[in-house]
Amino acid sequence: MADKPSIPKGTRDFSPLEMARRMHIFDTIRSIFKVHGFLPIETPAMENLSSLMGKYGDEGDKLLFKVLNSGDFKAKLSSEELTQTSAGKLATLISGKGLRYDLTVPFARYVVQHRNEISFPFKRYQIQPVWRADRPQRGRYREFYQCDVDVIGSNSLLNEFELIQIIDEVFEALGLKVVIKLNNRKVLAGIAEVIGAPERMTDITVAIDKLEKIGQEGVMAELEQKGLSRDSIEKLEPLLLMQGSTREKLDKLKGMLEASEIGKEGLSEVRCLLEYVNTDPVGSELEFDLTLARGLNYYTGSILEVKSAEVAIGSICGGGRYDDLTGIFGLDGVSGVGISFGADRIYDVLLQLERFPLRAALDTILLFVNFGEAEVKHIIPILGRLRNNGIASELYPEQAKMKKQMTYANTREIPFVALVGEQEIKDGILTLKDMETGKQERLTPDELVERLKI
Amino acid sequence: MADKPSIPKGTRDFSPLEMARRMHIFDTIRSIFKVHGFLPIETPAMENLSSLMGKYGDEGDKLLFKVLNSGDFKAKLSSEELTQTSAGKLATLISGKGLRYDLTVPFARYVVQHRNEISFPFKRYQIQPVWRADRPQRGRYREFYQCDVDVIGSNSLLNEFELIQIIDEVFEALGLKVVIKLNNRKVLAGIAEVIGAPERMTDITVAIDKLEKIGQEGVMAELEQKGLSRDSIEKLEPLLLMQGSTREKLDKLKGMLEASEIGKEGLSEVRCLLEYVNTDPVGSELEFDLTLARGLNYYTGSILEVKSAEVAIGSICGGGRYDDLTGIFGLDGVSGVGISFGADRIYDVLLQLERFPLRAALDTILLFVNFGEAEVKHIIPILGRLRNNGIASELYPEQAKMKKQMTYANTREIPFVALVGEQEIKDGILTLKDMETGKQERLTPDELVERLKI
Repeated sequence: MADKPSIPKGTRDFSPLEMARRMHIFDTIRSIFKVHGFLPIETPAMENLSSLMGKYGDEGDKLLFKVLNSGDFKAKLSSEELTQTSAGKLATLISGKGLRYDLTVPFARYVVQHRNEISFPFKRYQIQPVWRADRPQRGRYREFYQCDVDVIGSNSLLNEFELIQIIDEVFEALGLKVVIKLNNRKVLAGIAEVIGAPERMTDITVAIDKLEKIGQEGVMAELEQKGLSRDSIEKLEPLLLMQGSTREKLDKLKGMLEASEIGKEGLSEVRCLLEYVNTDPVGSELEFDLTLARGLNYYTGSILEVKSAEVAIGSICGGGRYDDLTGIFGLDGVSGVGISFGADRIYDVLLQLERFPLRAALDTILLFVNFGEAEVKHIIPILGRLRNNGIASELYPEQAKMKKQMTYANTREIPFVALVGEQEIKDGILTLKDMETGKQERLTPDELVERLKI
Repeated sequence: MADKPSIPKGTRDFSPLEMARRMHIFDTIRSIFKVHGFLPIETPAMENLSSLMGKYGDEGDKLLFKVLNSGDFKAKLSSEELTQTSAGKLATLISGKGLRYDLTVPFARYVVQHRNEISFPFKRYQIQPVWRADRPQRGRYREFYQCDVDVIGSNSLLNEFELIQIIDEVFEALGLKVVIKLNNRKVLAGIAEVIGAPERMTDITVAIDKLEKIGQEGVMAELEQKGLSRDSIEKLEPLLLMQGSTREKLDKLKGMLEASEIGKEGLSEVRCLLEYVNTDPVGSELEFDLTLARGLNYYTGSILEVKSAEVAIGSICGGGRYDDLTGIFGLDGVSGVGISFGADRIYDVLLQLERFPLRAALDTILLFVNFGEAEVKHIIPILGRLRNNGIASELYPEQAKMKKQMTYANTREIPFVALVGEQEIKDGILTLKDMETGKQERLTPDELVERLKI
């Protein structure tokens, strides 16, 4: 086997350094989920294909990774079925399982399957990888982690408020400045109503969602192409261009949406949510953005999206309220609201801004140089004491040349090296070398523990 | 969709309680890996099928989950290929990727692929799920986690010693009594040599490995059936029956293996390793067990296995030294040694012995009862202060009946409930109810923070 081995395109290995950085992100997010009382769950990587198919649109069905049935997967198929069936259809005949595409559909499935064990409102978080057979490209992977946090079984806007707090706390803890954008699908529905195209709400939100990508004229053109009347489009235009503070925008909209019940309801939800925020203001900028639509069809109320205020990279977190997510699995009338943190983009932002902490808390702090068997046996109990005190320490496992051992310490960025030779053993001390300054100290084992304890 | 949704057989959902317990195990293991200076990596769930096939034997190839190629996976296949090819062969024509079967082969692949970025000796750990299309049965799953820790690029027995320390520390931290069994493949090779069947070492170890399952007579019968001579079998028997302390066993073996170079080398490795242990003895029972063979073919030196001393459940951790693991990916001469913790069995042992900690550290400590909008707005800033102090707290999101809110607190096992009504707001205090004792206290927000701070 002369070929250098490789991994499937769009997937990644994570090196120790990348892992330390990723764990910094996940640990930060997890600790804030926990302090808000959210509970973790995990679901299997593979779901029954029937649980996944049809949940993400036709395009989504194609992007599902399908797992071939074990054993003789073609035993029950006739030659005709094997050769004449389209690949898409045949795939479902020979694959009963698929890799999860997101964490939302498995969560809905979980809630329905375990509804008798769950005490509602159910505040859950879930941090796991998902898989999509997307065309790999810069920043888009076929395997990536999602960090989802949802409350299911409660209509209260206090849940949206808590998610805004969580967003604010996560990014503050990560040292990132963000803008939290807020809108409400009911406001968008109201707008569709008052411009005389109530049944075109989906087309309108899909088009508005592209505003940033294709510009105002692009949106107008798309809506015209979709058959929206010129009159409706003209009425929509000033709304998209609306400027001013959140309060000003809300006041203007109040007049415009007077005739739409759902529109008024949406506005009142936005106002109520902002009142909650006022009682304990967040540090992040919070902006009511009428052009925020979020493509996913299942949102029915508040929608949220977070962007970095420092790096142009698209959304790094987003979500919203869905009134009937579990309906797809036969359980109606359960409202939920949730957001998802985009770990990969957050990683890229932190890297670009050099905001990762310099060292992970438990990286190796001390390396004992290996001078030979007698010294090693003297060192072993000292090493044990250091580790019992939580000081991550190593003994170089081979009696290699000093230079090689020092190179290891340098490459691993170990800040201290301990030297214990014949003389040190006799004196009952160690020589501690600070690898940055080069300074050396002679210490007893007791003093060493005190010196390095965090 | 009237059917209750389900998940593929052999896979599991993990509820919040199960997650808390699993995270207790993983966090304990991880913290001890870290204090020994091991570094984390992660590899993709999917590997190229060519990296996996042929690494686990014919049976293993069948147990690999294969992922169907995206798009028109049958476009390049003729009707004849589709209908005439066996399922096993056809699977490899329509699937280029498979789910990882263990963490060892992906690690070998990782080391070879990234060898220029790695500073050796490379101490890595990896905690990720693996997938096997095994027949699901009690305690055997199609998706389960492995926790692997390996040192690659060092021949020193100090590495074996460190793994024994890690085993000891992990199970002590988990509160479990274990027996660590130790053997050496070179000793087994020496035995094969002196009983006159050097080339039958594999058959002999495979048979010995079954000693516990099929008994001594079963092992003898199997060896006879495999064509081992009666003379060899008779010479083997006393070795398998050998009793006494580790020192006594080693002394007896010394005489027996006098004529075998590899046998003597193995014995000297065992002695050296035990000498290291003597310099800083472990709390667990450590036993030299000549009948320990471990089935996997790639082990070449020390082998280790851990059993619970309290529950009969088979091995809960095991591993050994392999002299040429990366050879399968074209990189020869890199020795490694590693062990793998069986998280599922450890879970079962802890559950059976009721050794899980009663509460996870960051479970919700306090629930604010929701009496209505005015009270909620008063509570929000207090809630923020509690969370800033690391006190996991919740506000019930709906103004539901008192009974419903208390039931939520009870079901979630939240130990304290805070009541803030009109009078409390006027007095600037809260009523804190201890859910276990029923005792109530009146506290200011400052006092509340002090009271609940960990």
